[in-house]
Amino acid sequence: MEISEMSAEECSVFLERATVGRLGCSLENQPYVVPIHFTTDDGYLYVFSTFGQKVKWMRDNPKVCVQSDEIRSESQWVSVIVNGEFEELVEPQYTTERQHASSLLAKRYHWWLNALGERQLKAGDSSIEPLFFRIRIDSMSGLRATDGKNIPFKSS
Amino acid sequence: MEISEMSAEECSVFLERATVGRLGCSLENQPYVVPIHFTTDDGYLYVFSTFGQKVKWMRDNPKVCVQSDEIRSESQWVSVIVNGEFEELVEPQYTTERQHASSLLAKRYHWWLNALGERQLKAGDSSIEPLFFRIRIDSMSGLRATDGKNIPFKSS
Repeated sequence: MEISEMSAEECSVFLERATVGRLGCSLENQPYVVPIHFTTDDGYLYVFSTFGQKVKWMRDNPKVCVQSDEIRSESQWVSVIVNGEFEELVEPQYTTERQHASSLLAKRYHWWLNALGERQLKAGDSSIEPLFFRIRIDSMSGLRATDGKNIPFKSS
Repeated sequence: MEISEMSAEECSVFLERATVGRLGCSLENQPYVVPIHFTTDDGYLYVFSTFGQKVKWMRDNPKVCVQSDEIRSESQWVSVIVNGEFEELVEPQYTTERQHASSLLAKRYHWWLNALGERQLKAGDSSIEPLFFRIRIDSMSGLRATDGKNIPFKSS
């Protein structure tokens, strides 16, 4: 197994095709990691969510890390790590960005918005509202493991 | 899609079958997330690693979070989150625990030890030594999403 570093360009290409990541945030030096769906555009990762621990924590400490990978086998995998900063897309300050996020995410995660809608209907609770945020990418790094069989990843 | 909380027992059963997790650590409130292979036994997650940023950070701040999931589809997934504390299994203080970790991990990750051996040979660098640590599980929580089709996860 060979492990090599990925260029910033390779990391970007990987993130454009990735759908799932793990978001790490921390409060008083206690880390917290949760899976997220995201889409990337022009130096940002866009995410929607409902209110919960991660949003609460990121409001207090906006420093975050997002890790995304594609593990084909023990010796064939890609892992990309993004360091960045949380920005909540609140109205009216971020109306344009919020619409942009909504439109980008709807292209890929229509099912999620539907599920959220169903949950709202069932719970009769309009407080379950989609909340949009983005992560400004400050730095990226990536590692790629290959076993010499040289089968390209779909994301490379 | 229905999302339900998992019991501690269900989280434990899931972790026993899981092979990959994402470890979150943090230093000066900057989170860092990396994929790990682990095995669990009696309230601990056991991991081996080479020395790098995560170990450096965990030596400074032992509070960690490990997230592990099985994503079958957008509406069928399990995600378990462990909060715990890093303990490096150094000699001679932890000789017994180190042997235990080595034996547990070798059962599942023989390929990894082989890859490490090859890297040592190639680099001619004995400083690439396996380093064992464990995470004492302080708390666990889990969510399970089902789409009503009721196909059981292998880990449930």
